[in-house]
Amino acid sequence: MEVSVLLFENFETLDVFGPVEIFGKVTEHISFYSLHGGIISNSHRVSLDTLPLDNIIKGTYVFLIPGGLGTRKQVHNTELINKIKQISTLSVHVLSVCTGSALLAKTGLLNGKRATSNKRSFEWVVSVNEKVDWIKKARWVVDGNFYTSSGVSAGMDMTLGFLADLHGEEFAGAIAIQIEYNWQKDKDLDDFCTSE
Amino acid sequence: MEVSVLLFENFETLDVFGPVEIFGKVTEHISFYSLHGGIISNSHRVSLDTLPLDNIIKGTYVFLIPGGLGTRKQVHNTELINKIKQISTLSVHVLSVCTGSALLAKTGLLNGKRATSNKRSFEWVVSVNEKVDWIKKARWVVDGNFYTSSGVSAGMDMTLGFLADLHGEEFAGAIAIQIEYNWQKDKDLDDFCTSE
Repeated sequence: MEVSVLLFENFETLDVFGPVEIFGKVTEHISFYSLHGGIISNSHRVSLDTLPLDNIIKGTYVFLIPGGLGTRKQVHNTELINKIKQISTLSVHVLSVCTGSALLAKTGLLNGKRATSNKRSFEWVVSVNEKVDWIKKARWVVDGNFYTSSGVSAGMDMTLGFLADLHGEEFAGAIAIQIEYNWQKDKDLDDFCTSE
Repeated sequence: MEVSVLLFENFETLDVFGPVEIFGKVTEHISFYSLHGGIISNSHRVSLDTLPLDNIIKGTYVFLIPGGLGTRKQVHNTELINKIKQISTLSVHVLSVCTGSALLAKTGLLNGKRATSNKRSFEWVVSVNEKVDWIKKARWVVDGNFYTSSGVSAGMDMTLGFLADLHGEEFAGAIAIQIEYNWQKDKDLDDFCTSE
């Protein structure tokens, strides 16, 4: 299972490393990318070396798009949005965490599809593309090969849910036990949504 | 709040970045260290540049020690263990996640103190130093300025618990909500311990 993770300046730490921890239990093929490659950092002083997105020629099995404050700037980065669109189209599964769905929505690929995002930034995410069928109350949403999760920690529940969809709940549950994680299996249960 | 994170080859991803996500909501002063500094990687292909531990001259406010498969090798690294001992002695709070408590136990600083660790590697951790009062059934354990957590994800619950001890439960709870994390507040509740 090839997992390709998009990074950009000011990505949210756990949006990336929650899913990476879980994918790391099933594959050694995890790679980090950014628009032009090189060192990418965030406000938590996490700094990683990345490959350029152009290296993904034929798509990937899982394309993971995190959120974070950096998305506010990146939705206006036409070159990045075009690359995300191109790679998402070629990839088998596309997963976004938190405000990562704003980047995905900006490509137009979610138009008419169901998707969710971070609760605190929900209005902003909706404003990025109102043609998406935004679902506010959901831990994560699946529509075709697109998985979109709520804020930060929800990315872990979604990643386990994604692996459950592929390999069964028992398979995903065993990973949750291995990392001593209280997996919330119900994608429709959302304790952090205070309005519908 | 100065947070200094120890890294070594084959650290566990979420042991580090779960707590870093949470500490990142309260401080900008997070730094990554390793014995001699330089690039440190793990099996999830996460690769970070680090400062040498010698740069920590007067201790730090929080010294965070993760676990991971790398601990099996590092418990025999006398130079590293001596540095961990020196920095832990100088620091205000010492937190370990998962098998990170094996490294801390090896220093002797936990002798006669209560501590916990990963459930799956518990016997190995106990064997590293039997003079520690190892508590198997606990999400995390506090003894003086030492906080030790169970496996991987327990590090997030412990970090929120640590912040609750410092600033109150409401303060920590607000961070949990911000990152949409289902915080397990009870340090004595351990769903992953199958024996006492």
